[in-house]
Amino acid sequence: MPKIKVAIIGFGNLGRGVVSSLKNNPDLELAQIISRDPNRVRKEVRDVPVFSMDNIIKIADLAILCGGSKEDLFGIKTNKKHTASKVRIPDPGTVGQGPYFAQFFNTVDSFDTHARIPDYHQYLDKFSRINKHTAIISAGWDPGIFSMERILAEAFIPGAKHYTFWGPGVSQGHSDAVRRIPGVRDCRQYTMPVKSAIAWVRTGKSPVLTPRQRHTRLVYVVPEPGADQLRITRAIKTMPNYFKGYDTKVVFISQVKLRKEHEGFPHAGFVLASGKTGTGNHALIDYHCDWGSNPEATANILIACCRACYRLNRERKYGAFTMADIPPAYLSPRSKADLLKNFM
Amino acid sequence: MPKIKVAIIGFGNLGRGVVSSLKNNPDLELAQIISRDPNRVRKEVRDVPVFSMDNIIKIADLAILCGGSKEDLFGIKTNKKHTASKVRIPDPGTVGQGPYFAQFFNTVDSFDTHARIPDYHQYLDKFSRINKHTAIISAGWDPGIFSMERILAEAFIPGAKHYTFWGPGVSQGHSDAVRRIPGVRDCRQYTMPVKSAIAWVRTGKSPVLTPRQRHTRLVYVVPEPGADQLRITRAIKTMPNYFKGYDTKVVFISQVKLRKEHEGFPHAGFVLASGKTGTGNHALIDYHCDWGSNPEATANILIACCRACYRLNRERKYGAFTMADIPPAYLSPRSKADLLKNFM
Repeated sequence: MPKIKVAIIGFGNLGRGVVSSLKNNPDLELAQIISRDPNRVRKEVRDVPVFSMDNIIKIADLAILCGGSKEDLFGIKTNKKHTASKVRIPDPGTVGQGPYFAQFFNTVDSFDTHARIPDYHQYLDKFSRINKHTAIISAGWDPGIFSMERILAEAFIPGAKHYTFWGPGVSQGHSDAVRRIPGVRDCRQYTMPVKSAIAWVRTGKSPVLTPRQRHTRLVYVVPEPGADQLRITRAIKTMPNYFKGYDTKVVFISQVKLRKEHEGFPHAGFVLASGKTGTGNHALIDYHCDWGSNPEATANILIACCRACYRLNRERKYGAFTMADIPPAYLSPRSKADLLKNFM
Repeated sequence: MPKIKVAIIGFGNLGRGVVSSLKNNPDLELAQIISRDPNRVRKEVRDVPVFSMDNIIKIADLAILCGGSKEDLFGIKTNKKHTASKVRIPDPGTVGQGPYFAQFFNTVDSFDTHARIPDYHQYLDKFSRINKHTAIISAGWDPGIFSMERILAEAFIPGAKHYTFWGPGVSQGHSDAVRRIPGVRDCRQYTMPVKSAIAWVRTGKSPVLTPRQRHTRLVYVVPEPGADQLRITRAIKTMPNYFKGYDTKVVFISQVKLRKEHEGFPHAGFVLASGKTGTGNHALIDYHCDWGSNPEATANILIACCRACYRLNRERKYGAFTMADIPPAYLSPRSKADLLKNFM
């Protein structure tokens, strides 16, 4: 069997995760990297051709888009009312890397701005389809695995109430928001699920839970020398959208301690669904994952989706898909006979 | 949208579960029941046409096979070497209800003799395909959901070691085996997962576990008056395949108490997988389900698979499939737009 040739587009933490994860997936190989800064990448990754964004030779069967959801993948703002049908020829400057590269490659990405997924799907569907490409969007653990598990749980327990809890784990977005407060040198924000809330859901009581009842926030802050810690704490706890309405604990530590004890990007989460079967018997589905490295977890899942993308494209299934549209067997490196014999 | 019309073939606990579960699934409706004993069924279910096995008018879009795996669904013994290509025209007496009814209906079943699934798949694939039918085999929670979760976990964590634990829950097969011991009037056998073993796996240590280290067995026995309880206990604990090699606890109780405290068929289970991502960070996937009624749980899952069966057949995907071949969205009653907006 020839290996599936993979391109990485955008080379940060996620791109690095893909490089290390490919070593555990012998049916795929890294064929090329595309980056805004090819010289930087060439110093880090040897033996792989590196291209700049505007001068590409296509080598790979498909590309993993490793840029950020907000800045890179999808450029059009939601407050302007665009539709895919009005945009003629996308370029990365106007519509973002997702629609742009869907013209040239089968693509797999982890677009994770939940509210914009329907829009993003519409664009990728159009630009993939007209070029006979297949795009798997919003893969990862949430959206991605958790989306699948929410859909499956509700299909198996009709009328079930489903719950998602995240953490304990580092939230990059929240950490960035705190770093923008004057007097903050560095920060690491952990989202923590409320254990008693999870236990409550597991009793099958289907409680109604506010955001505050589901998660707490734990913030490690490295202050600038002489900064007013009380002011920083207040600025964090009252920050709208990010911290207001949550129980937030702020801990000041040194840069050395932050580097030493909080250098990783662990994350975890839960999908729970509880309800009743036909004559009123209880039913509970309880999914949990725990990752030492969030970018490596996402990379692993994107690579499994590369198999599915490749297979769907060979079946001439063009357009945009999510993990909800993928048969589990398409994600596996194993043959149908192997799965029937050893995994059923 | 017209409702999907469902036939039930074989009317025991599972068939009853399907009837009650259909009430929670408004996009499907019961169209007919096919039974060896139509008169018995007519007394229990009103307003639905009931047919005997050998005199069928086809009304439904698809049939759920609710017969037992061993006696009903697949008649050919493994010690005789048959292949699907040699059997010309199946009838229920020689090959079982699975291959037989695949000639006349799209089918969904919960065939659960794990070792014979590849054989069964071969038969159903042949007899479905030549009649342009779609068969979803071995659906339920194990095989079924758990098969999917094992495949997904290994795809997301390459090289992961995966573990399945069952229980606490009633095992029908083990209860039947004990009932055959002279002096036993009635019995209920619970399979119990060893909690410390589950905790061990959750640490990420990937232990090697013997069957005894994974499960214990708890047997409630109603003895015949004057029966030798020591002899019964010994007969249970030394029974090969079923109890030998396990830590088994036998408890003698009255028929009244058995009926009162053990009338339900609860079951539960766990699929765990642990391994490492790219640079050696830990990864754990931990799936758990808990059902107050095992037959109702299986019925719920079979009904979700009916949607997938109907959709696959309309796409002209003929032959045999398992839940590993089904995109999660095909199991859901919701539209793609709804799933993109609310479940991603």
